[in-house]
Amino acid sequence: MPAQQRTGLWLIGARGSVATTAAVGLLALRARIAGPTGCVTELPAFAGAGLPGWDDLVLGGHDVVHTPLEKRAEQLAHAGVFGQSVFAAVRSGLSEVDAEIRDGYHPAAHTGAQAPAAERLSADIRDFAERNGLARVVVVNVSSTEAPCPRLPEHDDLGALETALADPARAVLPPSSLAAYAALRAGCPYVEFTPSAGVTLPALQQLAEREGLPYAGCDGKTGETLLRTVLAPMFGARALKVRSWAGTNLLGGGDGETLADPVTVASKLESKARGLAALLGDDVTAPLHIDNVPDLGEVKTAWDHVSFEGFLGARMNLQFTWTGYDSALAAPLVLDLARLVAAAHAAGARGALTELGFFFKDPLGSDEHRFAEQTARLLSWAGSL
Amino acid sequence: MPAQQRTGLWLIGARGSVATTAAVGLLALRARIAGPTGCVTELPAFAGAGLPGWDDLVLGGHDVVHTPLEKRAEQLAHAGVFGQSVFAAVRSGLSEVDAEIRDGYHPAAHTGAQAPAAERLSADIRDFAERNGLARVVVVNVSSTEAPCPRLPEHDDLGALETALADPARAVLPPSSLAAYAALRAGCPYVEFTPSAGVTLPALQQLAEREGLPYAGCDGKTGETLLRTVLAPMFGARALKVRSWAGTNLLGGGDGETLADPVTVASKLESKARGLAALLGDDVTAPLHIDNVPDLGEVKTAWDHVSFEGFLGARMNLQFTWTGYDSALAAPLVLDLARLVAAAHAAGARGALTELGFFFKDPLGSDEHRFAEQTARLLSWAGSL
Amino acid sequence: MPAQQRTGLWLIGARGSVATTAAVGLLALRARIAGPTGCVTELPAFAGAGLPGWDDLVLGGHDVVHTPLEKRAEQLAHAGVFGQSVFAAVRSGLSEVDAEIRDGYHPAAHTGAQAPAAERLSADIRDFAERNGLARVVVVNVSSTEAPCPRLPEHDDLGALETALADPARAVLPPSSLAAYAALRAGCPYVEFTPSAGVTLPALQQLAEREGLPYAGCDGKTGETLLRTVLAPMFGARALKVRSWAGTNLLGGGDGETLADPVTVASKLESKARGLAALLGDDVTAPLHIDNVPDLGEVKTAWDHVSFEGFLGARMNLQFTWTGYDSALAAPLVLDLARLVAAAHAAGARGALTELGFFFKDPLGSDEHRFAEQTARLLSWAGSL
Amino acid sequence: MPAQQRTGLWLIGARGSVATTAAVGLLALRARIAGPTGCVTELPAFAGAGLPGWDDLVLGGHDVVHTPLEKRAEQLAHAGVFGQSVFAAVRSGLSEVDAEIRDGYHPAAHTGAQAPAAERLSADIRDFAERNGLARVVVVNVSSTEAPCPRLPEHDDLGALETALADPARAVLPPSSLAAYAALRAGCPYVEFTPSAGVTLPALQQLAEREGLPYAGCDGKTGETLLRTVLAPMFGARALKVRSWAGTNLLGGGDGETLADPVTVASKLESKARGLAALLGDDVTAPLHIDNVPDLGEVKTAWDHVSFEGFLGARMNLQFTWTGYDSALAAPLVLDLARLVAAAHAAGARGALTELGFFFKDPLGSDEHRFAEQTARLLSWAGSL
Repeated sequence: MPAQQRTGLWLIGARGSVATTAAVGLLALRARIAGPTGCVTELPAFAGAGLPGWDDLVLGGHDVVHTPLEKRAEQLAHAGVFGQSVFAAVRSGLSEVDAEIRDGYHPAAHTGAQAPAAERLSADIRDFAERNGLARVVVVNVSSTEAPCPRLPEHDDLGALETALADPARAVLPPSSLAAYAALRAGCPYVEFTPSAGVTLPALQQLAEREGLPYAGCDGKTGETLLRTVLAPMFGARALKVRSWAGTNLLGGGDGETLADPVTVASKLESKARGLAALLGDDVTAPLHIDNVPDLGEVKTAWDHVSFEGFLGARMNLQFTWTGYDSALAAPLVLDLARLVAAAHAAGARGALTELGFFFKDPLGSDEHRFAEQTARLLSWAGSL
Repeated sequence: MPAQQRTGLWLIGARGSVATTAAVGLLALRARIAGPTGCVTELPAFAGAGLPGWDDLVLGGHDVVHTPLEKRAEQLAHAGVFGQSVFAAVRSGLSEVDAEIRDGYHPAAHTGAQAPAAERLSADIRDFAERNGLARVVVVNVSSTEAPCPRLPEHDDLGALETALADPARAVLPPSSLAAYAALRAGCPYVEFTPSAGVTLPALQQLAEREGLPYAGCDGKTGETLLRTVLAPMFGARALKVRSWAGTNLLGGGDGETLADPVTVASKLESKARGLAALLGDDVTAPLHIDNVPDLGEVKTAWDHVSFEGFLGARMNLQFTWTGYDSALAAPLVLDLARLVAAAHAAGARGALTELGFFFKDPLGSDEHRFAEQTARLLSWAGSL
Repeated sequence: MPAQQRTGLWLIGARGSVATTAAVGLLALRARIAGPTGCVTELPAFAGAGLPGWDDLVLGGHDVVHTPLEKRAEQLAHAGVFGQSVFAAVRSGLSEVDAEIRDGYHPAAHTGAQAPAAERLSADIRDFAERNGLARVVVVNVSSTEAPCPRLPEHDDLGALETALADPARAVLPPSSLAAYAALRAGCPYVEFTPSAGVTLPALQQLAEREGLPYAGCDGKTGETLLRTVLAPMFGARALKVRSWAGTNLLGGGDGETLADPVTVASKLESKARGLAALLGDDVTAPLHIDNVPDLGEVKTAWDHVSFEGFLGARMNLQFTWTGYDSALAAPLVLDLARLVAAAHAAGARGALTELGFFFKDPLGSDEHRFAEQTARLLSWAGSL
Repeated sequence: MPAQQRTGLWLIGARGSVATTAAVGLLALRARIAGPTGCVTELPAFAGAGLPGWDDLVLGGHDVVHTPLEKRAEQLAHAGVFGQSVFAAVRSGLSEVDAEIRDGYHPAAHTGAQAPAAERLSADIRDFAERNGLARVVVVNVSSTEAPCPRLPEHDDLGALETALADPARAVLPPSSLAAYAALRAGCPYVEFTPSAGVTLPALQQLAEREGLPYAGCDGKTGETLLRTVLAPMFGARALKVRSWAGTNLLGGGDGETLADPVTVASKLESKARGLAALLGDDVTAPLHIDNVPDLGEVKTAWDHVSFEGFLGARMNLQFTWTGYDSALAAPLVLDLARLVAAAHAAGARGALTELGFFFKDPLGSDEHRFAEQTARLLSWAGSL
């Protein structure tokens, strides 16, 4: 891909914590007031991959809330996600990004068929590309986790789906999948960074196939699950038998509130549980909780307790506590994905980008959860770009 | 290697916790009263490697103490390393092993040149091989950690070393290295499972070269360091900057007592620190302590606190507590090493077995500390056997 | 109280882990093969209180299961609650205790009115007292936690309750409360060591009043809650503002299984939450989980994360992990309670023994949860006996 | 004490983290932009004690460094000890405090007898009192921990000490004790908030006695030791036998650097160890470390591992991790002490204020380390003021 090509990054949930941190970070990187810590694509292995530079990325997005980006960034600075001096330095740049954010699709506020809504979303992205002279736009969903989506027959067949979308009496797609539909219809690769349905519906993968577009997901792997996919293979390699792996996550922020809803949290817990079962088998007791603890603000704390059996039945355990700013962990990965997916698109890739499993709790098109193997695969792919 | 060939495992420190647990475990595996949990060489990947079977292994060794193996095993069962029923089932088998243990070399009790002492040690091993009709004997040092060994010119040159060994006025080799010398002189591969000097002296590696023998080491990677070599690469792969990695180890047992000596513990701390620096660079603050806490008995508890920096300078941390029976973690690795080194010897390998870095804190002949890479390398090597 | 008076300890749930450990422990104390670690009443402050001696206590009880006590003790020894040698030493004594265990009341197996069932339970206790020449019998409920009991009007009025008990078409009392009713009708003080309804119903407290009997409860304070009532007052005394106190409990054994039921666990969680709110106020976010992790066996592990605010809004936190054998923590307290309640009864105490709040998560008749204050009150009361 | 009396708080180490935080906090409290979280003397129990109000306190002090207070406060705000908005609000007030800071005594920079140096320090305090019309001045040492002070005969006898102080060839007092001497000579009560020698020398206590002045110390109890004195009594009250209590402290800031010196850290470790031994006896294994981890900045993290024995020898453990801003924990206690000691002085108290053990790791004149008992004693004393 010619490095000079300008590339769009269109964020669904563009005013959320992750998107705001990504915007602040991109502006800070561009202004050389912050180093690329946490940006995987700045590692030496990616030097020759011809990825778009920080100066080539243009931000825009959809959101259903209207808090100005500057206000959100101020809150995040106050919460300690980044420093006041970073915020002060990028403040004015944020209003330019703000100008590229359009109203998202809100099911409660919408009436009539979903097709025209999708068309409006696509048009927003196309206008953004044109207005900014972009070679391509990568769409990434970083909005709040949705409740699990009841599966309909239309989700499995693109033709049936498009018929249903035209029906004013039905609303067959959850917002994340409508966003994915709109992105693909606009000719854009789509990345699902949350555990929501998004592009996971077969009908949407048929659409990507038809349009010759790549996609990736699901659910950014930033904390507890990252550690699990690093640690679980160790037990396997050492022939130690994990008997139970219990986890508790405490989080505040909007994420904590969203996940306090028992229906919504089910999406997240399922996504987390799948990985552990894939790594250790189904016979491991694995209770898992996500608690909303508002006073923790943007900090997320996970405690895991792993009980395992060794030689001659010896019972041993490992506990860990991970304390991090989830937005600070996720945001650079979102920027990384924009660069990598843009390069894949430029190179003609289509379908599930299984080489990007490194980034996800529930990698689309792959059942490789072991982090070291995912790392090796990503680096080897980057070398081939 | 013909699977039916009988293979000796000669343990230096044959009455210690690790050796005793290995003996109990081998007898239990042979009697089918315990499964191979913790035995890496029982993983499917090793099925076709032609390793000696449990029934092919014969145990013997040197030690400077005379507590009967049965007594030591009883203490370990009482301490919870294995169950009373396992102990009861293997009790009689232990006395057979006991009959193959000979007096080790004790510097304080020895007078005169070291050469005849080494010759006596070699003879013990040769007799053992002959008496039991063994195709080969792998010698593994699992005795107590020695104080760091002051480096002499003779350690770098085999000729000079052999001259010095013949000098009744000098004692140039620490016990572990004398054991390695004796092993190699008896035509046996040598494995250094402790952080002692053992086979690390260049003169001994010249000897191994001359005799066409393989060797491996150093310092079995069983707990805190295992986790460090699993976790540190994750930070690297995610471009996160580790700023400090503090560790505290609490241990009782004889190990705790040995390591309570500030001079001796230096060997262990150096071995542990080298790995972390190799993985993360030298600019990580890494205080490390080993405390003797007798009431913990055979249990070892390690607490690590990792402070790292993410995107835009966000400060985050990871803590873990690992609680394990060190002997139960080490013993199956000793059995694994016996099998693997025997197979390497049968296949004509000589020099440092760098493919076995998987097992060691301070892998001889390799600067690869990343556990996943070590695992891949071990498995690929096993496939080629 | 004359120290020589023989005193009965009648356990509801006499074959459970706590009861079995109490029986093993009492026999071991009597045989002088174990010291009184964990027995509060053996502290010097209780020396002059004239409590019954270990030799004066006689054990019996009700249970709905029939596993012999010896079998249960063997399982607990295997699980590490006490040593094999302790088990071997008390084995024969356990069969004597076994002979004093009668069938408990099981709602599913019972038909007809509850009154005759209660009468049968009372008779069992009276027979026990008579057969053993006991001055008094203290009844302690250590059976499995029940689901929360829906409140009926009869629970508030003794007359109405007794009418309902006689009605063959109704079953108004949960098993714990029927046991309390039977105990009080047999003239025995009653201690509720679980979070079940037991003696907490007003009608039963009226009965205790009428019969002039003392009672105590509820829910033995052995682990996480003990720590909470020790730590929470520290924050208060230092004017630090606790903002959240999250907890996760992992437990196996029968207790884990019982509490895996979401309805039953509600009793326990309510009991735990009440204490925290009493200590810190209602505005503390306090998610709390109890997970069934069978492989942990008799071990219980609790992790608590306390987030608090200090001077000028500084955000700080405390985490703790408590790992214990719940039965080993509870059993000596049950023996302590038997001695103390017997002494209170002998001294003519009636009604709620508020001085015993030290032992309970949810102290009957008291809203003092601070452990240091409970300790002071207990010791001062013991001094007055 | 008439509440309207203006009271001085003279800080030795007035430009350090604790002093700066105390200054920022006092200004913030006075400006009503921060609540009194962490200030014990604002608890209801102290309402009637007639303590000086926040508006009555005037700050000054000695220091050997010259960094402006505003600069130090800016660093602390950046490190997260308090918010940028608090800093901004008190910024101008800090320069007024700065104007009351005088050069401290620096042994390396001093030549000649110590007596005139002490006289100069006393004069600074007297001038401060006069200039500000203060009824009294409380002197509190919050400077860096000194290395343990070798005991001289002059430390035990005031006459001998004063003779030695006049000798130009000798320097018999460490800086903290010279500060205490100067304070007492100026007629001011003295509080030792560090583990340095300060007022602990018998000769200085003779001086306090002669001058009729109260004093208090040593070593503010803010984190790990606070928890130990809260938790250790629990084990005692429950007759549980603590076998080992291991601790590791990680800290950055200036404090970490000072305590990285193995000689200096000895003072701190001794002070910490004394309390544990007083609470649990001498037979508890209690390794303790303090590590300098610069990247932690102002955050202090302590990990403690307590191994204890329960009924029938059951082995259990408790671990905790405490993460706090040491300055935020210490500063309000310094303000509390100023108020309380001022009130005690006004009430005519003299000698060691044993009622203030609540605040100290190593309470002068008292061997009561149990926090709940210290709390009760403080509150009862406050009630009597």
